[in-house]
Amino acid sequence: MSDKPIKRTVFILSDGTGITAETFSHSVLSQFESVEFKQVRVPFIDSHEKVDDAIRRINEAASREDGLPIAFTTLVNSELSARVKTANAMFMDLFAGFVEPLEQNLGVKSTHSIGKSHKGGTSVEYRNRIDAINYSLSHDDGQFVKDLAKADVILIGVSRCGKTPTSLYLAMQYGVKAANFPLIPEDFERGSLPSTLHSFRHRLFGLTIQPDRLAEVRHERRPNSKYASIEQCRYEVMEAERLMRMESIPSLSTTTKSIEEISTTVLQEINLERQMVY
Amino acid sequence: MSDKPIKRTVFILSDGTGITAETFSHSVLSQFESVEFKQVRVPFIDSHEKVDDAIRRINEAASREDGLPIAFTTLVNSELSARVKTANAMFMDLFAGFVEPLEQNLGVKSTHSIGKSHKGGTSVEYRNRIDAINYSLSHDDGQFVKDLAKADVILIGVSRCGKTPTSLYLAMQYGVKAANFPLIPEDFERGSLPSTLHSFRHRLFGLTIQPDRLAEVRHERRPNSKYASIEQCRYEVMEAERLMRMESIPSLSTTTKSIEEISTTVLQEINLERQMVY
Repeated sequence: MSDKPIKRTVFILSDGTGITAETFSHSVLSQFESVEFKQVRVPFIDSHEKVDDAIRRINEAASREDGLPIAFTTLVNSELSARVKTANAMFMDLFAGFVEPLEQNLGVKSTHSIGKSHKGGTSVEYRNRIDAINYSLSHDDGQFVKDLAKADVILIGVSRCGKTPTSLYLAMQYGVKAANFPLIPEDFERGSLPSTLHSFRHRLFGLTIQPDRLAEVRHERRPNSKYASIEQCRYEVMEAERLMRMESIPSLSTTTKSIEEISTTVLQEINLERQMVY
Repeated sequence: MSDKPIKRTVFILSDGTGITAETFSHSVLSQFESVEFKQVRVPFIDSHEKVDDAIRRINEAASREDGLPIAFTTLVNSELSARVKTANAMFMDLFAGFVEPLEQNLGVKSTHSIGKSHKGGTSVEYRNRIDAINYSLSHDDGQFVKDLAKADVILIGVSRCGKTPTSLYLAMQYGVKAANFPLIPEDFERGSLPSTLHSFRHRLFGLTIQPDRLAEVRHERRPNSKYASIEQCRYEVMEAERLMRMESIPSLSTTTKSIEEISTTVLQEINLERQMVY
């Protein structure tokens, strides 16, 4: 083998947004770390013209590059699906192998309709989702304590430990009303949870973080402040973790975790059985 | 066929978060509208104990229900994957059919490592993503005009047309710095874009909405207000659309669209070639 790095253009071909295929391809391709992938998403392919345009782009890439392009497809329409496969690529059809066995198992035919996977503007699920996003936004960082009783979960932890992105993700992807509340030096001096939270203890989840990572994050925000000093970070993290232990609040370190991993753990621990809403 | 509705329990089995499999299953199962699916996500399956626990849960469901449970799996470890398949379910292995052909096409072996698909706490991608979320939060609803030059896109439109959720989604899933800016009656009286936006015209994208839908949404927020009246909504939408046409700003109606569909269109129109960051 030569030392030349392997490169491939990856096409995501969909009659909807292509987000399913994108998520999937991402997961599969991340298992080939030595290869450099250039991803091109071609969404909303719902006509012969758009298929032909996609074919042209694929063939261009094929003639320009060494290896065969890879194409992940989720085209429900079988005619368009067959047509696009005349392009010069390696096709990974995400539906082909799955829909038919499911039809047999379930004893019903699939509807072969596109764009069903996202719940649009007027469905109940969609409204709940938007409500949850608005809720999480207005209950970010303890700024609004009214309606805390409506929270599905309340994330607590020191400033900059990852509460805000996690709250927003939970709302966005799962329609979960996620409030978040900072633990601050005052709480540590008093040695107890903010009184506002006492009646919601069963809905609390703690996020924590390694002090050196916290110092890095805070430093970006307020360089050379006491707030960002490693001493302050060590103190706050130690005290916050102590409070969580004392109050038996389930918790997780966010240091090396993605928002998805943190959110998944929160849902599990709080026993929130939620499905993605989109 | 009897009139009894078809029901199935669907297991999502993963050694990571299971979000890939969940997205995928959602997309495939939405093509069987007449079936009632109950989805159970079992994430972080990384040991024999956890496999056995999953098997127990599947077999319980199988013995309790009429039809065979369906299990979508993304277990990279082949031993754990084989073991879980001894459970009493119909298995849909999302990796099996794809990784091997890819290995042949690329001429390299997959790393068979788990949890690679999410970029965790310390990667560059992850930091960009968190930066984008913070950016979009602080540039929500025109509240902060500093640093607008750093925006990848600035969404404009009347109050409650979907700017905030779209901005947050673009930041969360694509690391896109998405500001948003309301168009308000003052702008319509003056008949021009807010002056702050003039120098960023090439980065503007307009969201619009049907007046009756807008009235509904506003009514939930401020019942019986002038703000929520159908006359006011009609006026604002008409004027906003006129401004967008006048200034040749690309736009989209959000009325029946999901956040994913809106975001995908924005990325296309603004020619932002972005990959999912998680």
